[in-house]
Amino acid sequence: MKPILPTIESPADLRKLATADLEHLAGEIRERIIEVVGRNGGHLASNLGIVELTMALHTVFDFRHDRLLWDVGHQAYVHKILTGRNARFDTLRKPGGISGFPNVDESEYDLFNVGHAGTAIATATGLARGASLRKEDRGVVAIVGDASIFNGVAFEGLNQAGTLRRQLLVVLNDNSMGIAPTQGGMAESLAKFRISSTYEETKRRVKKYLPQVPLVGKAAFDALDQLKERLKASVSPHQIFEQLGFLYVGPMDGHDVAHLIELITALKDVNHPVLLHVHTEKGRGADWATADPETFHSPKPFKVEGRRVEIQCGGRSWTAAFADALIGCAKEDDRVCALTAAMPDGTGLNKFRKAFPDRYLDAGIAESATVDIAAGLCKAGMRPVVAIYSTFLQRAFDQVFQEVVLQGLPVIFCMDRAGLVGGDGAVHHGFLDIAYLRSLPNMVLMAPGDAEELRSALDLAVSLKVPSAIRYPRDTVPDPLFDNGGPPRFVLGRSIVLRNGGDATILAYGSMCRNALDAAALLATQGVESRVVNARFAKPIDQEMIRAAFSPVAGESSMAASSAMTVQADRDGEIDRGCVHPIITVEEHSTAGGFGSAVLETAHQLGMSTGSLRILGMPADRFIAHGSRAGQLAECGLDAAGIAAVVLDSLRRADPVTVERQTANADALACARRP
Amino acid sequence: MKPILPTIESPADLRKLATADLEHLAGEIRERIIEVVGRNGGHLASNLGIVELTMALHTVFDFRHDRLLWDVGHQAYVHKILTGRNARFDTLRKPGGISGFPNVDESEYDLFNVGHAGTAIATATGLARGASLRKEDRGVVAIVGDASIFNGVAFEGLNQAGTLRRQLLVVLNDNSMGIAPTQGGMAESLAKFRISSTYEETKRRVKKYLPQVPLVGKAAFDALDQLKERLKASVSPHQIFEQLGFLYVGPMDGHDVAHLIELITALKDVNHPVLLHVHTEKGRGADWATADPETFHSPKPFKVEGRRVEIQCGGRSWTAAFADALIGCAKEDDRVCALTAAMPDGTGLNKFRKAFPDRYLDAGIAESATVDIAAGLCKAGMRPVVAIYSTFLQRAFDQVFQEVVLQGLPVIFCMDRAGLVGGDGAVHHGFLDIAYLRSLPNMVLMAPGDAEELRSALDLAVSLKVPSAIRYPRDTVPDPLFDNGGPPRFVLGRSIVLRNGGDATILAYGSMCRNALDAAALLATQGVESRVVNARFAKPIDQEMIRAAFSPVAGESSMAASSAMTVQADRDGEIDRGCVHPIITVEEHSTAGGFGSAVLETAHQLGMSTGSLRILGMPADRFIAHGSRAGQLAECGLDAAGIAAVVLDSLRRADPVTVERQTANADALACARRP
Repeated sequence: MKPILPTIESPADLRKLATADLEHLAGEIRERIIEVVGRNGGHLASNLGIVELTMALHTVFDFRHDRLLWDVGHQAYVHKILTGRNARFDTLRKPGGISGFPNVDESEYDLFNVGHAGTAIATATGLARGASLRKEDRGVVAIVGDASIFNGVAFEGLNQAGTLRRQLLVVLNDNSMGIAPTQGGMAESLAKFRISSTYEETKRRVKKYLPQVPLVGKAAFDALDQLKERLKASVSPHQIFEQLGFLYVGPMDGHDVAHLIELITALKDVNHPVLLHVHTEKGRGADWATADPETFHSPKPFKVEGRRVEIQCGGRSWTAAFADALIGCAKEDDRVCALTAAMPDGTGLNKFRKAFPDRYLDAGIAESATVDIAAGLCKAGMRPVVAIYSTFLQRAFDQVFQEVVLQGLPVIFCMDRAGLVGGDGAVHHGFLDIAYLRSLPNMVLMAPGDAEELRSALDLAVSLKVPSAIRYPRDTVPDPLFDNGGPPRFVLGRSIVLRNGGDATILAYGSMCRNALDAAALLATQGVESRVVNARFAKPIDQEMIRAAFSPVAGESSMAASSAMTVQADRDGEIDRGCVHPIITVEEHSTAGGFGSAVLETAHQLGMSTGSLRILGMPADRFIAHGSRAGQLAECGLDAAGIAAVVLDSLRRADPVTVERQTANADALACARRP
Repeated sequence: MKPILPTIESPADLRKLATADLEHLAGEIRERIIEVVGRNGGHLASNLGIVELTMALHTVFDFRHDRLLWDVGHQAYVHKILTGRNARFDTLRKPGGISGFPNVDESEYDLFNVGHAGTAIATATGLARGASLRKEDRGVVAIVGDASIFNGVAFEGLNQAGTLRRQLLVVLNDNSMGIAPTQGGMAESLAKFRISSTYEETKRRVKKYLPQVPLVGKAAFDALDQLKERLKASVSPHQIFEQLGFLYVGPMDGHDVAHLIELITALKDVNHPVLLHVHTEKGRGADWATADPETFHSPKPFKVEGRRVEIQCGGRSWTAAFADALIGCAKEDDRVCALTAAMPDGTGLNKFRKAFPDRYLDAGIAESATVDIAAGLCKAGMRPVVAIYSTFLQRAFDQVFQEVVLQGLPVIFCMDRAGLVGGDGAVHHGFLDIAYLRSLPNMVLMAPGDAEELRSALDLAVSLKVPSAIRYPRDTVPDPLFDNGGPPRFVLGRSIVLRNGGDATILAYGSMCRNALDAAALLATQGVESRVVNARFAKPIDQEMIRAAFSPVAGESSMAASSAMTVQADRDGEIDRGCVHPIITVEEHSTAGGFGSAVLETAHQLGMSTGSLRILGMPADRFIAHGSRAGQLAECGLDAAGIAAVVLDSLRRADPVTVERQTANADALACARRP
């Protein structure tokens, strides 16, 4: 049979195909996805599961006019392939290529750039209300997974959507898993229901009654209402959705494309919120993926040889280092427990769960509740560690404020994916955490420079009486920063000098320590000797580090300095000496409000001259697109070459003569102030 | 009858009272609350409604050992009166007095300082899990209102709580209102249920079967299960709670104290999560409050004379000014619509709703979904204005990031209560919004200095193609900043000079403009002339304002300055002139990451010398307690006297001779740079 996929240039082409062709096309799409994800890495199992459902929706609706919203968005590959992006699909997640998430810049069919879960129903409610207010007749559809739909924001969205007096179709794509098996009381109900119900039976009933359903308006609504009543006997999750104001239809077989088209056609113009419950299989079409959908949720590149699948191995990840560090802490302190919001694999807690099943909790895609539960655990005398991606902790900002910081509870946040995340791109970068956590009174912010430091940071966190957050990136751990005996232990608010040198000072935060050391090595080959400091803390920031790096503002005129501080006045003509010893801060975070800002603010408060400071980080006024992490670091100037270039540029701008004198001064200062 | 309330020193005293005494005590408590709230202002109607329920819980449990969590917390007055705080209750909301919310520093009976809704169930789940892990036998109770319980975080909490295999009692305090009538599909279901069900009937059934229920362990569980089955006929909201894994009991009359004690005693030791649905009347005991519970939710001080109640009037509030400004905008632009998360009164949208009912939405206590709905509306071509308290926008931080900023949608956030809030205290201050919004690419942040400026800021926001946020405090509007013809219109990123003077520069943000002008007037009486600038924008910040205020760093050595910038080198001995012209930023926000930080960062980027800058704002490392707003402003040094004192201190530190020369320089600079 001649391949059909190359002939699909837009969803309109789907409408020309017979059922057998559609079924064949589904197979081709699955092959295409396995091929590209095998090469590029990406989200696999969820996309294999949603092929027929996506085809059916695009067959029935015209989403150039109607509105389609993807919740989370990592399951939109089929949608991309069907909406004119198949030819470029092999660039998935590559620099300049197709994004792994819906992206408004790629296609008129993508409405929102998303990557965080649970928001589509509320957004769809807004789109629906907006279309009504603008007097535009647009169908609105939201596709939501069974883990996402029990997220708090999704529930709030359903609660609002249920009050609509117009069309809105929410499709519940139920594969009994989020990224990990779905958690919570509601998921347990759904699981019981899955076991007890036979949706084959439902399907037969629908087939029987569907011809009686007219296709538009009030009549369709009434008929559907009757249909629903007839289906009720075999249905259980209808209750909650009906209480929220929805018509509930389902569950349906999500892999019977002809039947899905028939059903969605019947539902298309119902002037009432409808919840269509579709049962799909995660990893469908690849038995190795259906057998282990968690591993194949978002694998690195892999090779399929017959029944053997080999996933590319990287080096040891920060995630793995965290898992080991946490298990080590938990062995020494039985108060240590760990929480994840549906990411046991991504955060490394899978390993912790095996070691300490009682002290582990997966609260589902519910970051806000997870932080509150942690606060409760902490109040009860435990030392909870919330393992979470930096970008997802944004979902719990207010809980961090109210339940943790306002109470002064020593909850520990371990923020994975803090910084540039590579292929997942703008929706997942962790570039805001320092900014939004730093303004919270008494919060401790730290970042380890290598795997051993991560353990030491965690040990300190467990010993603290205040909340703390530790950040580390999506990467392999770097070579150790310390040659012998590992790092000195973490002491609150104290930095560590990694390398000495008199020409410039690099203050590095967390993952940037290794890059800063590499930059210093590069610079040394050009005769420039840099001092590299591992700041360890963004809050409280090491004031001695600041005093050693910066020079005081000349004279007694520094009004920012506290009156208690002795400003070292120097009136013999060297007043601006601070300005020619370059100081560079380096961080994987926005330059607005991050570590560099903390250094600037502290230096200013201490009455130091900050003219020679340059702040390196992620740009403050644009988003970094998907690509390789190395490429993204280079784009931000955060690789060794980029850091070295800034040091050289700073030195070039300075007066060479002054530089020599400066260098001597800086060293003298450093020697005088740090034992 | 002799008053009983003075004899209640702790909850143990309740257990000695006969039913008639308890009923009499309830009346005394209501009188006490009306008396104190009438004098001090505070939350009235909800506390009048919860008297018997609170008494019953404290009678049955011992919350020195067991755990009691209040959701939102504004309904904890009765709890405070019963737990040893009646004598001091007349200091409610006063400086150094009893807080209007649970407060751990006040009493061992208060476990969490709260004020934001929806979190208690998740926190209680953590407390319950923690007690189990610590092998402590503690009862855990959470009290949640019918508006809060349908908040997303509450739902996430229920979903987790339902998986507990131990005791947890969630009391649903259902008065059919949050602060405003409860919104959403679920609320509509509950309303239908209220109309159809007769809880008197339920009560009779419970009375009949209750004696059969043993009081502890597995037997209690089983008996309760049977009881539940018997009650089911008259019950409807049980479905959702049962699907979440709870046993549902109710609805019960929340004003029959003897019956409540009986029932809670039966439920106390059930080893399973139980939801007890209690029906109470908001404002109970004061017919003027039951008739208008929204007005008497949180009134200012009032006087009751017979059936006439007179609430103290203040001047025109920022909230009222916003309402009028928004209505004005909406009249001119039919894309303008407005959203609130359950605060139509507090945000002023009540008035908007009357003018434009179709373009108004109350999404319930669901800040996250509200922002997503706004994003959908915006995508559909509307110009949504989210009217929200600064502190509650924290609940939607991730939605602001993902659904709004990442898409570049021109949603407008109007943040009321930005700054110090007076009597509500630490849980409600809006002191973080600049910090967490400033790092979001392309976000516009502005603050008007008077009522007319608020309209102008809103006009600009509606015209923008990017998201924006406008902040204003909980206060009356100040005297107009401009004498004739009102303020010049808002131009993106442009400040306005309010007063000229050569001795110091005050850069004021929003509400602080009036205080800065008053400070300048004070200073003028002492011969010090200050320039006062209304910054208007925290982002993008006015670079011309920065250039006019600060002096460049001496020489070419400023490596922070962009190479394109012309650094005005001055080599004739006046290199530190920038350091003796004091520059003071003033804002109602944390000094970490706020407007002052933005000024510092921008000055640094522009290569300016920042040694003479002082940043005034709310302290970065502690919380400001409840009290009067005026007192809080003074405590932070943000009143006119405080600002003037800092200017004088800065001048005193500077060399007087240099100051004179400086003043001339600064004026010359200002003249040269601003037409």
